[in-house]
Amino acid sequence: MKTASVCTIGDEILIGQIVDTNSSRIARELNRAGIAVRYMTSIGDDRAAILSELGKCLDNTDIVIVTGGLGPTKDDITKDALRELSGAEGYVESEEQLAIVKRILESRGIPLIDTNLAQAQVPAGCSVIPNRLGTAPCMAFHSLGRSGRSSLYSLPGVPFEAEGLLPLVMQDIQERFALEEITHRTILTFGIAESVLAKQIEKWEDSLPANVHLAYLPNPTLGVRLRLTQMGGKADFEPLVGQLRAILGDAIYGEGDDSLQSVIGRKLLEGGKTLSAAESCTGGRISELITSVAGCSAYYKGSVTSYANSVKTGVLGVPSEVIEKYGAVSRECVSAMASGVLRLLDTDYSVATSGIAGPGGAVPGKPVGTAWLAAARRKADGTVETVTKCVNFASSRSVNIERFASNALDLLRKII
Amino acid sequence: MKTASVCTIGDEILIGQIVDTNSSRIARELNRAGIAVRYMTSIGDDRAAILSELGKCLDNTDIVIVTGGLGPTKDDITKDALRELSGAEGYVESEEQLAIVKRILESRGIPLIDTNLAQAQVPAGCSVIPNRLGTAPCMAFHSLGRSGRSSLYSLPGVPFEAEGLLPLVMQDIQERFALEEITHRTILTFGIAESVLAKQIEKWEDSLPANVHLAYLPNPTLGVRLRLTQMGGKADFEPLVGQLRAILGDAIYGEGDDSLQSVIGRKLLEGGKTLSAAESCTGGRISELITSVAGCSAYYKGSVTSYANSVKTGVLGVPSEVIEKYGAVSRECVSAMASGVLRLLDTDYSVATSGIAGPGGAVPGKPVGTAWLAAARRKADGTVETVTKCVNFASSRSVNIERFASNALDLLRKII
Repeated sequence: MKTASVCTIGDEILIGQIVDTNSSRIARELNRAGIAVRYMTSIGDDRAAILSELGKCLDNTDIVIVTGGLGPTKDDITKDALRELSGAEGYVESEEQLAIVKRILESRGIPLIDTNLAQAQVPAGCSVIPNRLGTAPCMAFHSLGRSGRSSLYSLPGVPFEAEGLLPLVMQDIQERFALEEITHRTILTFGIAESVLAKQIEKWEDSLPANVHLAYLPNPTLGVRLRLTQMGGKADFEPLVGQLRAILGDAIYGEGDDSLQSVIGRKLLEGGKTLSAAESCTGGRISELITSVAGCSAYYKGSVTSYANSVKTGVLGVPSEVIEKYGAVSRECVSAMASGVLRLLDTDYSVATSGIAGPGGAVPGKPVGTAWLAAARRKADGTVETVTKCVNFASSRSVNIERFASNALDLLRKII
Repeated sequence: MKTASVCTIGDEILIGQIVDTNSSRIARELNRAGIAVRYMTSIGDDRAAILSELGKCLDNTDIVIVTGGLGPTKDDITKDALRELSGAEGYVESEEQLAIVKRILESRGIPLIDTNLAQAQVPAGCSVIPNRLGTAPCMAFHSLGRSGRSSLYSLPGVPFEAEGLLPLVMQDIQERFALEEITHRTILTFGIAESVLAKQIEKWEDSLPANVHLAYLPNPTLGVRLRLTQMGGKADFEPLVGQLRAILGDAIYGEGDDSLQSVIGRKLLEGGKTLSAAESCTGGRISELITSVAGCSAYYKGSVTSYANSVKTGVLGVPSEVIEKYGAVSRECVSAMASGVLRLLDTDYSVATSGIAGPGGAVPGKPVGTAWLAAARRKADGTVETVTKCVNFASSRSVNIERFASNALDLLRKII
């Protein structure tokens, strides 16, 4: 199995100013390609540290992916450290990247001064993968390290630039290292805790062919993802997935890069149906998740965040007696919110939440972390049918909100 | 200056399943205490790798902070690796942590089996900082490394548990390493690009006393934060901050841990005023930011996400002629949305957005990344006054949404 290390360079990481998200994304892609990541490291814009750390990585792993330190300012010294590490004497110009740099600077109205044009200079002998989203290209260096066979890829630190280059880097790695063919299939589940899920599919898991590996990937927003992996040979996961579907039923909501909101969107688009939302404790998070899907305007009309009870009654039409008798955090209230917003925004479906995200706000019998969730559907005869669910979590305010939102979307997806 | 390294342990990080947020938080606290972070590393649940990496960190830095690998399952081997590293022969029981473990397990209805009770066992000779939020305590080991004077602190990997223990760890470090007194003051600005800001305050920066250091900390949601730091001696930042206020005026919106939404909330609370929002392109993000502040129900009534034009006209009362004549992304429309939601939800202030987050949706003269923002205020005579602003960004859908939302909050904050 080929091995890799991932290294991020930049003082802004070591002082805790930014969270490094590049490393996780790169590690995920390497893992998917069947490459084992041994180290992930962050170091500062310090020449000696860069040379020593990258040297160690090249000596101990086959592939080293570096991000950051490629900006035009004088504290970005990664490129010259890489030149030294690769044994190159000087720089050459990448014509392809130079054309991109000129185009980008001109479109932003920035003068073509030497500092910026130097972004297209690369150490002699390296391979360039042009970066269409920024001025610094990806540079690849080969035949390095103790083995004389390790490769290093240097990417810009700006996350969307690194993300744009990553598929090209992975393709280059695939060809250069003649990786064993690897096949994945990821099945997405929601609503069953990881330990309970493991128990439910224990026999199925034990019966998997020896060359098929199962991984559990839990996530508060996406649920527990089950990833099947086969190294080498032609994989046929269809029968295995069929058995899994028979066991888990509608706990399975999608595959691969799906999310609850993308699956909901697809179903609504297919059926030509529309959606609205009424949020209290989730404060806008459900609407934000729904609108994170590009093209959602085809089915999503909007939402009402009814934080104050006066908005629940005045805008959504929740009867004030319902709030007086049962409280705002109740099956009756959330149900009236769901049907209220469905009628107000004239949609086929709706989703609603009312709960206590914390840290304060608990009432007798309803501790912090309690929420009532509802999903509503307009029936053929024009009446509205509502399903409700009560959940309880014991996390921080932000995690409670996240879980309320994803559980509400799960309730909605089951009635569409 | 004391030096530190931060190490996270866990296979879930190396396969890219989770983004490590602990390291950034820990690095920030170390930096604030005047300690220089030299390395940040992630390694797997592998005994040899743990021993070698932590050994290297202890040899090269004064303080090593480790997170993760302390769970009760058999793949969590950090604790025994730490025992070996510290030279301890066996384990002792931490009575204080045992009481916490029993309490937590009982409250969750989990049986008190050996695997769980073993969480209170620690290597002989280590110091324990009890963890009230989880079963694994913080363990501190001293007099290690090449110098014989380095310390290692091991924290659980669960972010809110690590966060809860961090102040106690920092206090211990402060006392043990007799750190030089360090004073910070962070001034928050919004709406001025970092490079422009640097130019504006260039003379002020040049005039800073030699022992005062200035750092620029840019962030898309918080704006550019300016952090003043003085090592040693009694700091008097008041005159410096006064000069800065004179230069930057209302670009300064707060200090320290403030955010646009917390400052807005405080102003509204002080004045006994209320707030609502009408969102189109931001899809719920503004409402989510406002409700991220605990206690916001005292001033925030709610919002309408009017994704569809029918909701803009039908619920918010935007005249359909406005949309026909000027389009939904226009000064006229966003202004009508702001005054519409203010009247509908009966609030003193409101904020509204209408734009094109992308990737599609551009119209002639309005490229992707364009948004109109509005903030409205009810005047004493009952009429509504609105201010508007047009912004343009060229980022991804999610970053565009984030910037539209923070710029709208900035517009709102300036009229309160």
